[in-house]
Amino acid sequence: MTNLLETISNPEDLRSYEASKLPQIAQELRQFILGSVSSTGGHLSSNLGTVELALALHYVFDTPHDRIVWDVGHQSYAHKVLTGRREAMSGLRQYGGISGFPKRSESEYDAFGTAHSSTSISAALGMAVAARTKNEKRNVIAVIGDGAMSAGMAFEAMNNACDNKKVPLIVILNDNEMSISPAVGALNRYLVKLISGSMYAATKRGIDKVLSVAPPIREFAKRLEGHAKGMVGPATIFEEFGFDYFGPIDGHNLESLISTLENVKVLAQTEGPQFLHVITKKGKGYALAEDDPIVYHGPGKFDPAKGIQPSTPGKKTYTQVFGEWLCDMAAADERLIAITPAMREGSGLVEFEQRFPDRYYDVGIAEQHAVTFAAGIACEGLKPVVAIYSTFLQRGYDQLIHDVTLQNLSMVFAIDRAGIVGADGATHAGVFDVAFLRCLPNLVLMTPANEQECRNMLTTAFMHNGPAAVRYPRGAGIGLETTGQPLQALPLGKGHVVRTRQEGLAQPKKKIAFICFGPLLYSALSVGEEINATVVDMRFVKPLDEELLVQIAATHDALVFVEDSSVKGGAGSACLEVLAEKNIQIESLQIGLPDEYVEHGEVSFLLNYYGLSAEKIKQRVLSRFD
Amino acid sequence: MTNLLETISNPEDLRSYEASKLPQIAQELRQFILGSVSSTGGHLSSNLGTVELALALHYVFDTPHDRIVWDVGHQSYAHKVLTGRREAMSGLRQYGGISGFPKRSESEYDAFGTAHSSTSISAALGMAVAARTKNEKRNVIAVIGDGAMSAGMAFEAMNNACDNKKVPLIVILNDNEMSISPAVGALNRYLVKLISGSMYAATKRGIDKVLSVAPPIREFAKRLEGHAKGMVGPATIFEEFGFDYFGPIDGHNLESLISTLENVKVLAQTEGPQFLHVITKKGKGYALAEDDPIVYHGPGKFDPAKGIQPSTPGKKTYTQVFGEWLCDMAAADERLIAITPAMREGSGLVEFEQRFPDRYYDVGIAEQHAVTFAAGIACEGLKPVVAIYSTFLQRGYDQLIHDVTLQNLSMVFAIDRAGIVGADGATHAGVFDVAFLRCLPNLVLMTPANEQECRNMLTTAFMHNGPAAVRYPRGAGIGLETTGQPLQALPLGKGHVVRTRQEGLAQPKKKIAFICFGPLLYSALSVGEEINATVVDMRFVKPLDEELLVQIAATHDALVFVEDSSVKGGAGSACLEVLAEKNIQIESLQIGLPDEYVEHGEVSFLLNYYGLSAEKIKQRVLSRFD
Repeated sequence: MTNLLETISNPEDLRSYEASKLPQIAQELRQFILGSVSSTGGHLSSNLGTVELALALHYVFDTPHDRIVWDVGHQSYAHKVLTGRREAMSGLRQYGGISGFPKRSESEYDAFGTAHSSTSISAALGMAVAARTKNEKRNVIAVIGDGAMSAGMAFEAMNNACDNKKVPLIVILNDNEMSISPAVGALNRYLVKLISGSMYAATKRGIDKVLSVAPPIREFAKRLEGHAKGMVGPATIFEEFGFDYFGPIDGHNLESLISTLENVKVLAQTEGPQFLHVITKKGKGYALAEDDPIVYHGPGKFDPAKGIQPSTPGKKTYTQVFGEWLCDMAAADERLIAITPAMREGSGLVEFEQRFPDRYYDVGIAEQHAVTFAAGIACEGLKPVVAIYSTFLQRGYDQLIHDVTLQNLSMVFAIDRAGIVGADGATHAGVFDVAFLRCLPNLVLMTPANEQECRNMLTTAFMHNGPAAVRYPRGAGIGLETTGQPLQALPLGKGHVVRTRQEGLAQPKKKIAFICFGPLLYSALSVGEEINATVVDMRFVKPLDEELLVQIAATHDALVFVEDSSVKGGAGSACLEVLAEKNIQIESLQIGLPDEYVEHGEVSFLLNYYGLSAEKIKQRVLSRFD
Repeated sequence: MTNLLETISNPEDLRSYEASKLPQIAQELRQFILGSVSSTGGHLSSNLGTVELALALHYVFDTPHDRIVWDVGHQSYAHKVLTGRREAMSGLRQYGGISGFPKRSESEYDAFGTAHSSTSISAALGMAVAARTKNEKRNVIAVIGDGAMSAGMAFEAMNNACDNKKVPLIVILNDNEMSISPAVGALNRYLVKLISGSMYAATKRGIDKVLSVAPPIREFAKRLEGHAKGMVGPATIFEEFGFDYFGPIDGHNLESLISTLENVKVLAQTEGPQFLHVITKKGKGYALAEDDPIVYHGPGKFDPAKGIQPSTPGKKTYTQVFGEWLCDMAAADERLIAITPAMREGSGLVEFEQRFPDRYYDVGIAEQHAVTFAAGIACEGLKPVVAIYSTFLQRGYDQLIHDVTLQNLSMVFAIDRAGIVGADGATHAGVFDVAFLRCLPNLVLMTPANEQECRNMLTTAFMHNGPAAVRYPRGAGIGLETTGQPLQALPLGKGHVVRTRQEGLAQPKKKIAFICFGPLLYSALSVGEEINATVVDMRFVKPLDEELLVQIAATHDALVFVEDSSVKGGAGSACLEVLAEKNIQIESLQIGLPDEYVEHGEVSFLLNYYGLSAEKIKQRVLSRFD
C-alpha cells in the first residue's frame, strides 16, 4: 500500500484526498509519531491522542488562513507533521531543530506559541476579534485539554468570549483526563457527569440527529433554538457562558469529527462562539501508552517493540532530593502541608501523596490559587510547601507579592526547573526567577549548589519565620548522598568560601574570586583550581552575605559573579548593588544568561553555548582579567 | 435615642444586643461611615453597601475565632468600625493611621490582607483546610463581589473548593454589579439571569420556606436532598461546583441575613462548602452615591449635605495624558485596539470608549486574559494597547513573558500607578515593575519624567516593532501641555542631558551626575541646580543608553541613580551592570525605594519618608560625596 503520509507536504495536499483515505493517513501518522518520538524522545501520549483531531482540523479548515491554537502545545506533533515538518521531526527538541511546541517563528501554521497551559482561548479570541475588526473571513480554533480548561485563565477567556458575540471562535475541548487519574476539581467532575450522565444521552441524540440528516446546518440551528427554549435537556455550563455546545463526540472517529467540524465551522461564522466537546484517549493506538499514559507522557528514546525499559538508577535528581526531603520533613513536623498545581510527578510528590494523603493538595492547574490557598493555610500556623516550576511561578507572581511576602507569611516555595531546562526550551527555562524574586521584601531566596545544600536549604526555608524559596535545577546534581541526612538548617544569609586563592602562584595576574549562586559553583570551582582563584558559594541571593562579599572584594582585584539565571537583575546585580552601597570599586564580571530567550537543546550544549561551561567561563575570565 | 454604635468596641459588644436593635445600629453605622469617609476621603459606595452584611456576619459568627476574608477589602469599613477601630477611622489611609484595606498586622479581626481582587476564596479555603487539619471547629467566610468573582483566580478556588468536601467554607457573593454598569462577562449575565429569571423565583421560594419554619436546618437539608434529586428547579452553576447554593437574598434585610447565615453556619460544619448569594446596592442609604456609585466609589473629602462639588480642574493627571493620547493615536491609526481589565475610569478610557466603541475591550477583572487576548490581536497585525496598573500587571506576568515578549509581538503596555501611589498603600504601590520587567528580553521599557515625554513615549511604544511598556505615576505631572501636541516618537534607547555641571563652581568637591528615570528627574534637577551637578533624563530603562552612561561616567567622579521604583533590581542596577561590563569603576549611589513595602499615606510625605524628596536626595548625596 502506498504510504500516503509521505505525499503530504502541507494541508493542501491533505485536503486533496477524499475523506475515505483519512483513516489510512491517520494510521500512518500514528505510526510515524510513535517511531519518531521513540527515536528522539518527546511527548507521546498526548500526541497519539490527537492524531485524528489534527487531521480533521486541517482537512476541514483552511489553514494557515484559518488559525489553530494548540493549548499547551505538547499535542501538536501530528499538526507539525502535516504542516511541512515531517522530516524535521528527527531533529525535534534538539538545538537547531524544531521545537516540541508550536512556535510562530517556526511555521506560518503555528498561529500562536504555546507551552504553558490555558492560553489558547484568550489568544484565539484575540485573533477572532481581529478578524472581525479587519473584516476578514477567518475561523479561529482553540484546542484545549480538560486539565488546561480548569485553569483560571481559560475561565477568564470563556467568560469574556461571548461579550464578543459573533466572532468566529471555536473552542474544542479535548477531554482525555479520565484516562489518567481521578478528576481534580469541579469542572472535571462536571465533564465526567456530562459524558456519563443523562445529559450525555440527550446531547448524544442531538449529535446523532445532526449526523444523520441533511442539510445538517438547519438541524443545528433548530437544536440551538430548542436550547434557547429549554426544550433540549438542561443547558451545559458552556451554554451558560454563551457558547453553542456540541458533543461529546468520539475524537477518534474521523467521520464524526469531520462532519461536526464542518457544521461548527459554518455556525461560528453566523452564530458566534462554538464549543465542541471531543473525547480522546491519551496514548491511543499504542497499548503501552494507553495503559500508562503518565509513563509515556514525555519519554526519552525507547524501542517501541519493547516499550520503556527500567533504567539503572543514575544520580538522584533535584526533584527526587526534594521529594525525599518533603517526606522526611513531614514525618518530623506535622505542620507540613504540600501543595502542587497539577505537578505530582514532575515535582516529585508521588511518594508524599501515598504516605501523607491528608496533607497533600493537588489544586489542579491553578498557580494563582495554589499560592494564595497556601497563604491561607500559613495564616493558621501550618507550614505549606508549594512545589512549583520556576516558569509556572510566574503565574502566581502577584499572589506571591500581595498575599505572601507582603504579609510575611511563613511558607516554603520549592522552585524546580530553575535555570536552563534543555529540550523544553524558552517557555520552560527558569531564568527570570532570581530577578523577579529578589526585589520582593521579606523573601528569603536560596540557590543550592548541590543536593545536600538543597536539602539543607529546604530545611532552612521550612524553619524560617517568613516566606522562603529554594530554586534548584532540572536533572541531577553532582551525586552527593542525601538519604538519611539530618534535617539541618543553614545559617541565614551566610555564604562560605569553597576554595581560597593561594598566594605566590603566578596565574593570573589579578587576584580573582568567583562569587557563585547555585550549581554552576562546580564549573567555577574547576576553573578556580586551574587559574588559582578564590571560589565562594554564596548560597543566599537574599539576604546576601554582604560581610563576606565586602571581605572578598577587599582581598581580591576582580570579582566574577556566576549564576544560571538572567544577568539582568540577577544575583550578580545584587552584589553590584551592595558594592555600590559600600562604596567599593572593583572590577567585576557577570556570568549568567544573556538578555535573550534560551533555545531548546541539550543542557550541556546550551551551557556551553551561553558561555556557562567551565571552559567558556575560563575563557571569559582570562580574556577579561589576564 | 442612645447612640448604640458608640457602645460597641468589639463584636462581643455587638452580639450582646438583641437582634431587634440591629437596624438602629445599622443606621448609625451607615451615618458614621458617611461622615467618616466624607471627612477623610476613601471608599464610599462599596462600604455603604455592606453595612448590614458586616453587622450580620459579626452578629452570627464568632469573630475573630471565625475568619472573615473581605475580597478586595474596600468594603471593610463597617467591619473595621465594629472591630475596635471606630475612632481610628479618622486616620484612615493616612500615614500611621489605619489602612483602607484589611491588614493582618492591624487587627486580629483582619484574617487576611486584601486589596487586589479575587483572592478571598483561595485564602478562606486554605484557612478552612487548616481548621480541619488541626481539628479546630471554625467557620471561614469569604465575602466576594460579583466583579471579583469573574476573575480566573476565584474560579480556580471555586473549582478546587469541593475537592476538600466538608471543610467549613462559606462563600458569600455580594452581588451589586447591576447598580453600576452593564454586566461584563458571562458570569455576570448569569447572575442577572439568576436574579431576574425563573431560577430566581424557585430559589426564592426555597429561602422563604426556610425563614418561615423551624427548625430551619432540617428544612435546608431537605432542600439539599431535593436538589440532588433534581426536584427543586435547575441546579445553579455554583451547585455544579459542589457548593450548596442559597439565595439570592436581600443584603440589606438584617432579619433575612441573620436567619440565613445562622443556617449556613450549621450547614458549613456538617455539609461542607456553602454559597450564599446576597444582593446589595452600592451607595445604599446615601442617595447621591446610590445614583452614581462610580463617582462616590473613592471620593476625596466632601460635604455630605452638598455631595461632591465640581472642582476646578488642576494639572492634568498622567491618566488623562494617556486617555488623550489614546484617542489621538486611535484617530490617527485605525489599527489601535484598547484593552482594560475592568479599569475604564481608573485608566482613563471613558472618552475612548465613547469615541471608539468598536475598538474598546473591557475584559473584566482578568489580567491574565487581557494580556494574552491582546497578544492574539497583535498576531493579526493590529496594535493592542493594554492599559493596566503596575501592581495588577503582576497578575499577567507569565502571559507577558510567555505570550508577548517571547514572541516579540508588537503591543503597548500603558502602566499606570507606577511608583508610590499614596493612600492605597503597599498593595497598590507600583514599585517592582522595573525589576520584573527589565529582565525580559525584547521588551522596551520607558519612564517618562513629564507629561509630554509620556505622550511621546506612548507614541514611541506604539510605533515600535515589538513589545513596549511605558510606566507612569499616579496623579499629576509638572503641568506641561499635551493637548494638540504631535504624535512624535523618541529615538529608541536614547537619554538626554537636562543639565550640565558647570566647571569652576566649587560645590561639591566631586563631579556628580544624576542619572534619572521617571518623574523624580525634577527633584534631582532642583538638587542639581543647587549643588552644580549634571542631570540626565535616561528615558529608557531598556534599551539603556549605554553610550551616554559611559560618557557621563568618564567625565564625572560619582553617579547618582534616581528612580521611583525598588532599588533592588531597579534601573540603577541596570546601570551598574553596564558599568561592570564596560569595566568602569566609579562611585555610585542608588536612590529609589528601599527593600520594604511602601506604607500608605500622602505621596509627598512618603517621598520624603523614603528619601526621595529633593531635600532628602540632596542630604544623601552630600553626606556621601562631599
